[in-house]
Amino acid sequence: MSDSVRAMTSRGFFAGRTVTELGREMSAGRLSAAELVDQALDSIDSLDAPINAFVTVDAEGARLAARQADAERAAGVDRGPLHGIPVAVKDIIDTAGMATRMGSAHFADHIPDRDATCVRLLREAGAVIVGKTTTHEFAYGPTGDVSHNGPSRNPYDTALMTGGSSGGSAAAVAAGMVPLAVGTDTGGSVRIPAALCGVFGFKPAYGAIPIDGVFPLASSLDHVGVLAGTAEDCGVAYRVLAGQAPPGAAEETPVRVAWLVTDSAVVDPAVAALVRGRFPDSEEIALPGVAELFRTYATIQGSEAYAVHADRVARSPHLFNPEVLDRLRHGEIPGWRYVRAVAARESFRRQASALLDRYDLLALPTVAVLAPPIGAREADIAGARVPVRDSLLTLTSLWNLAGLPALSVPAGVVGGLPVGAQLVCAPGREELLLAYADRLRGGHAALLAG
Amino acid sequence: MSDSVRAMTSRGFFAGRTVTELGREMSAGRLSAAELVDQALDSIDSLDAPINAFVTVDAEGARLAARQADAERAAGVDRGPLHGIPVAVKDIIDTAGMATRMGSAHFADHIPDRDATCVRLLREAGAVIVGKTTTHEFAYGPTGDVSHNGPSRNPYDTALMTGGSSGGSAAAVAAGMVPLAVGTDTGGSVRIPAALCGVFGFKPAYGAIPIDGVFPLASSLDHVGVLAGTAEDCGVAYRVLAGQAPPGAAEETPVRVAWLVTDSAVVDPAVAALVRGRFPDSEEIALPGVAELFRTYATIQGSEAYAVHADRVARSPHLFNPEVLDRLRHGEIPGWRYVRAVAARESFRRQASALLDRYDLLALPTVAVLAPPIGAREADIAGARVPVRDSLLTLTSLWNLAGLPALSVPAGVVGGLPVGAQLVCAPGREELLLAYADRLRGGHAALLAG
Repeated sequence: MSDSVRAMTSRGFFAGRTVTELGREMSAGRLSAAELVDQALDSIDSLDAPINAFVTVDAEGARLAARQADAERAAGVDRGPLHGIPVAVKDIIDTAGMATRMGSAHFADHIPDRDATCVRLLREAGAVIVGKTTTHEFAYGPTGDVSHNGPSRNPYDTALMTGGSSGGSAAAVAAGMVPLAVGTDTGGSVRIPAALCGVFGFKPAYGAIPIDGVFPLASSLDHVGVLAGTAEDCGVAYRVLAGQAPPGAAEETPVRVAWLVTDSAVVDPAVAALVRGRFPDSEEIALPGVAELFRTYATIQGSEAYAVHADRVARSPHLFNPEVLDRLRHGEIPGWRYVRAVAARESFRRQASALLDRYDLLALPTVAVLAPPIGAREADIAGARVPVRDSLLTLTSLWNLAGLPALSVPAGVVGGLPVGAQLVCAPGREELLLAYADRLRGGHAALLAG
Repeated sequence: MSDSVRAMTSRGFFAGRTVTELGREMSAGRLSAAELVDQALDSIDSLDAPINAFVTVDAEGARLAARQADAERAAGVDRGPLHGIPVAVKDIIDTAGMATRMGSAHFADHIPDRDATCVRLLREAGAVIVGKTTTHEFAYGPTGDVSHNGPSRNPYDTALMTGGSSGGSAAAVAAGMVPLAVGTDTGGSVRIPAALCGVFGFKPAYGAIPIDGVFPLASSLDHVGVLAGTAEDCGVAYRVLAGQAPPGAAEETPVRVAWLVTDSAVVDPAVAALVRGRFPDSEEIALPGVAELFRTYATIQGSEAYAVHADRVARSPHLFNPEVLDRLRHGEIPGWRYVRAVAARESFRRQASALLDRYDLLALPTVAVLAPPIGAREADIAGARVPVRDSLLTLTSLWNLAGLPALSVPAGVVGGLPVGAQLVCAPGREELLLAYADRLRGGHAALLAG
């Protein structure tokens, strides 16, 4: 693979535009929500056919909501930083009256009656829901290329994966079709596609954003998260969805960053070198036992996912994609192994918490590889054949186990493809994490200029 | 079965004597810890052969501890209400330098290096550990009649069960060999033998008494509890072990008691009528779904117990009692069923919590039957054949699921055998529970007089 930049041939209106800037323009009367929705719809129209970021586009509903947002603003009502901002929502998150298909034939005709709480919070904040984005079937896959609605495709090269499961949300932001999207993250499903598509993806702490109305994958690991073009915009959406106040003045003290050296995950050396280079002042800390932690993760996720789907598997197995069905059935694990996995998770939580007593942030690559080709199931990393799923999930799933806030930051490009750096913090340190990530933007800017 | 009272032919020194009274006598110099230990050892010597409450008696260690307690008191040191009080400890709770056999051939020669935290707390409070009491093998049975060290036998009729698994602790207190004993309660293992042996047994809230150094049965359900002749003495021991301050003035407001009417547990009508009669002012509240809750309990307990024992089962199955081994193997349940059981438990916790917003206490029988014969595995209740294990566990295991404080109170006798009433409260209302139970003592006094 050459080191030349594979630039997207064209990008939508929102490329390089932030939620914060758009809000300022609207406040100043130089831009309207109606114009933004039209820009989003035009961008989707012109760009999305090869990418397949969107499953459903609600042009009519979005235009109506945008007009309401404009009318409110004209009447002096300001709902805050998301007022009038077009947002895309992953298609496993309920939207009242709008199809929510879970990437599955089981839900091909499903239209929820109610909004998920996170969608309600977006609407209450004045956001305009433009449509629903492609998800890996039932969010059960980090590749993003298995969906009843077709795979999402990487805007940098449509032969490649977006990563998943929130692949459509990442691609929609990366291609500039919307400035902000909501996803879910059970083992990395926000951060993985964010890394592979070159955008920011933030999974707050477990429970920070209300999960109800989101189709479950593995209930003790499921998180709602956000994807945007900047860390600042992730912060804006996070605060709205998690009910957090805007940050005070940034801390001036040096940020202590630990670079985690994992023992067993096979990481593409070019990816590792690039990301490592972004944290020159960090201290190297060994994190042993990562392969065993990944098994712990898989045991918990598999058991909980099967608890969600057991009756559906028994009743209509033919409606699942065979790969997803196979993976679900691998979740038929003895309960005592689940019990031991939960105990091992507790032990890792204590270990991570102790690390975060000593360091403000933990840094490591988001994903061990560059975006693999759609359909690939093995990757060649430094001469080793590794399951693609493991190479995508190993470094992100740690933080679902730990339940800690974790952000993927565009760190640069290798062979023209985006690479993500992952930052992890203790609950309560989200603003420090976001502010630090904001200062790392150089790599992202370079990428966008390419 | 006749209604004549089967009185114990003889009872030990501590019958009818409370910890509080003994402490007062020692404070006044009319009694010494050395004398109390000798009384305990004499009572065990003369009474325990047919009862088998004790697995290990540490005469030498106890006499030494008692002399130390007396010397401290003489020097003006008062360690509080347990200073100099003889206490028996269930044989799955670690005692440094004293055999701790778990009722199992696997641990026939096991001598721990360290005290369990609850034992350390007892010693720090000046209590004198007299010995270790018979437990059902690995505490995995409510009958108390399966142990490598032989069954414990009911002091009221040694052909009958004590109930279990803390059968030796209950029998030791019931027979007056010690005034106080410590047990553990995963599904009723303190309250069941307390009910069948006619003493008080208190399981505080989950986590209230430190569990470390106690051999696990099912870690999300395991509790340490106490057994004594009065509710007040349970309170004394509870406060020491849970680090609680002595109560302030008792509340004067009327106590709102809900009598729980369960839909599916088969309860001996004579037991139900007796216990119901102790709460004439309570309001009847239906608690549906008890059979399903018992399955939920069994799924969680079975999976967690197998997680503890899986390696031991694989390595040396012959060292288990066959019934215990069979029960362990029944714990090889699919993980997704465990996951669903944990979700059902959460739902029951919310339901119980809502009930305890409306009522101060919940009341129901502790056990559905009178003490069955040793070895019995089916009970005849109102014409139905019911597994003895279910009849013992169903009404107590609810409160392990809920993690709530629960006390078994001697409520009277049927056919000469003790019957227990169970009282449940919200965490933080323990003192109200204990004070209320103290006022119910009439039935216990009548029993002791019999």
